[in-house]
Amino acid sequence: MLNPKKVIENLEKLRTLTADEQGAQRLAWSPVWLKARAWFEDKLKDLPVEHHYDAANNHWITLPGESEKSLVIGSHLDSVPNGGWLDGCLGVLAGLEVLTSLAKEHNGKPPCTVRLVDWADEEGARFGRSLFGSSAFAGSHTIEADRKRTDRDGTTLEAALANCGIDVERIGEASREQKNIAAYLELHIEQGPILEKLGKPLAVVQGTKGVERWAITFHGQEAHSGSTPMEVRRDALAAAAKLALEIRPIARKHPQSVATMGSVKTFPGIVTAVVGRCEATLDMRDLDAGVLAGMLRGAREASERFATEERCTVEWSKIWSIEPIPFHPELIKLCEEAIIETAGVSEQLPSGPLHDAAEVARIGVPTVMMFVESLNGLSHNRAEDTKREHLEQAVIALHRLAQKTIDWIQQQ
Amino acid sequence: MLNPKKVIENLEKLRTLTADEQGAQRLAWSPVWLKARAWFEDKLKDLPVEHHYDAANNHWITLPGESEKSLVIGSHLDSVPNGGWLDGCLGVLAGLEVLTSLAKEHNGKPPCTVRLVDWADEEGARFGRSLFGSSAFAGSHTIEADRKRTDRDGTTLEAALANCGIDVERIGEASREQKNIAAYLELHIEQGPILEKLGKPLAVVQGTKGVERWAITFHGQEAHSGSTPMEVRRDALAAAAKLALEIRPIARKHPQSVATMGSVKTFPGIVTAVVGRCEATLDMRDLDAGVLAGMLRGAREASERFATEERCTVEWSKIWSIEPIPFHPELIKLCEEAIIETAGVSEQLPSGPLHDAAEVARIGVPTVMMFVESLNGLSHNRAEDTKREHLEQAVIALHRLAQKTIDWIQQQ
Repeated sequence: MLNPKKVIENLEKLRTLTADEQGAQRLAWSPVWLKARAWFEDKLKDLPVEHHYDAANNHWITLPGESEKSLVIGSHLDSVPNGGWLDGCLGVLAGLEVLTSLAKEHNGKPPCTVRLVDWADEEGARFGRSLFGSSAFAGSHTIEADRKRTDRDGTTLEAALANCGIDVERIGEASREQKNIAAYLELHIEQGPILEKLGKPLAVVQGTKGVERWAITFHGQEAHSGSTPMEVRRDALAAAAKLALEIRPIARKHPQSVATMGSVKTFPGIVTAVVGRCEATLDMRDLDAGVLAGMLRGAREASERFATEERCTVEWSKIWSIEPIPFHPELIKLCEEAIIETAGVSEQLPSGPLHDAAEVARIGVPTVMMFVESLNGLSHNRAEDTKREHLEQAVIALHRLAQKTIDWIQQQ
Repeated sequence: MLNPKKVIENLEKLRTLTADEQGAQRLAWSPVWLKARAWFEDKLKDLPVEHHYDAANNHWITLPGESEKSLVIGSHLDSVPNGGWLDGCLGVLAGLEVLTSLAKEHNGKPPCTVRLVDWADEEGARFGRSLFGSSAFAGSHTIEADRKRTDRDGTTLEAALANCGIDVERIGEASREQKNIAAYLELHIEQGPILEKLGKPLAVVQGTKGVERWAITFHGQEAHSGSTPMEVRRDALAAAAKLALEIRPIARKHPQSVATMGSVKTFPGIVTAVVGRCEATLDMRDLDAGVLAGMLRGAREASERFATEERCTVEWSKIWSIEPIPFHPELIKLCEEAIIETAGVSEQLPSGPLHDAAEVARIGVPTVMMFVESLNGLSHNRAEDTKREHLEQAVIALHRLAQKTIDWIQQQ
């Protein structure tokens, strides 16, 4: 009764409705996002479900079961600007097909309650606050910091929320939805190149990597590029350049670690002056908290060594961090079985990007994610794609995983 | 009869008149600059001189001599925003004192004509076009490129000139002032740390270094910082970082070469993305054209090697260049004599920064410059300074050099 092709059809319809030549434009709190949500809501009308939006604008669809214990399947419809056709909405539309199929298989009443959630503003692309809805749900929201966040046009997050009928002061009330949740599943594209390289369509996600995100500023001495001999310079860019190269061997000590210097800014930043101040960002990730702490320590020590070598000083300022969040070992096992039954082979990967699943897992809900291959490892742009046959396998495997999880919940 | 202290008094008056807490504000074509020029003009009223502004707004003060052959002493009153009290105006005010003294010594009529010039807009700080007035004088102006240059407020160079009564189309007529010029002298602060380090107050400038100024863009692949394994990245910043470090050994092969990466820009330039495009600037200088060409070749080859190593591509685009301009060997000798007679010791240095003297020398006028020490090598900011006793020695040495040059002109 499961119809995986229907999911692809829906994804294509959503793309037609919400993308332009530059890609998907379902930016959270925007008219296009609201249009996507209205289109999605319309698909619920023939299903035996209740649905509502919580205090943080997460959309909950509930198929009541014999037991109040709930299996939740979730993802998000919002996208980055100029985004792809799969990131987020694959999980929601596959979840809808699985829920629809489960309703039919169980004559409208499965052994436990099954819920689907479309999280609000996973991307944080407009206001710089990722996992907005799921963190409100998990109680890890940061209203004080978020209230005054503004987008490019100067609109505050508070005003954008009010425009969608949401009161920023009350988003914490979304935590009421935690009640009775027994397990959480999320299907997502990998957004990286590993599965394609391995020739495998699907993977079990072991957890989300911890992230250390820092702003690093080297202070040297601005000086005239024509009159300042090389040997007396205090070149802040040179110190930053050494660090940009050194973070790579630090990350390569462990096979799944990553370290990225994504932004470098030079001051005064003109062709005729030695750089007096250089601001860089560093993003380091690993699934193992000890490994991550070691990487951070290594980068910090290296930056101090390079600052000394270049007669500069260095300052570190934390932007954000999150600990590694491992998923549930028994659900990992069920997910692996579902994948092998579907595709014959499986793989275990950590997730480098964050997902709403991390917010759910950190409050203790048994959680697992499934990845489906991304072509060329591309995501967050219109070239994002996955083979049609692999998308269908993903829907089938998610359905199998949901069935296995319902059984597992019954046994708890 | 020479009064070096008078020069320091004038410099201090000019500072009081045209600086604020942030430093000198004699930005060319601005009301403060015009005020400085009016103040300066007022000092000429008791001198036996003719003065006028040429078609490019250079201010010429002429003390007619027995012969029409002219010795010209020059510099500029304009400053960068938040500039120092010496850069440019030391040369003009020392020149005024030397001219005043020569007039008295020769009873108002020296053996050859002596002229002082205050070049217009040496700094190019407002419209990005350095050596404006002296290049118009030399016929190396670039009206086509300059006409539409704008400042931060969107004012065009053409409009700013018109506001000062200057027609941009006619600036080439300043070349009429070339007539009868037999030698050109310019006194300037070093703007670098070498003389202070050597413990010497004054130096003969051998010439101005050639400059190669390029924009270098590395193209890699933007990618997610969380999901992209280290070994598949094409990190444009890594290639640029290698180049930022490699230009230093390239410059250090020759004692007076300098190479500077002054600006680095990263795209998309966010903490969560591997840098897909990195734009850098390179400024290389040496007094020897062959050495400079070799440095440029070395940097270019290195950039291509680094691009290949990082699986990126690299593009070079010329911003600007100028050949090395050596000063006149006989005037260099006279300048060295004048310095040794004044300070007991001398030094020979190339000039890394450009000066109006380069424009004069490139049309074949015998030219030399003299440098006086800068404290801490600082310039272009309010901390710019030179010991009072060394400023006085500089005025004395410039006077001696002018006397020697007048004799030399007589012998030609």
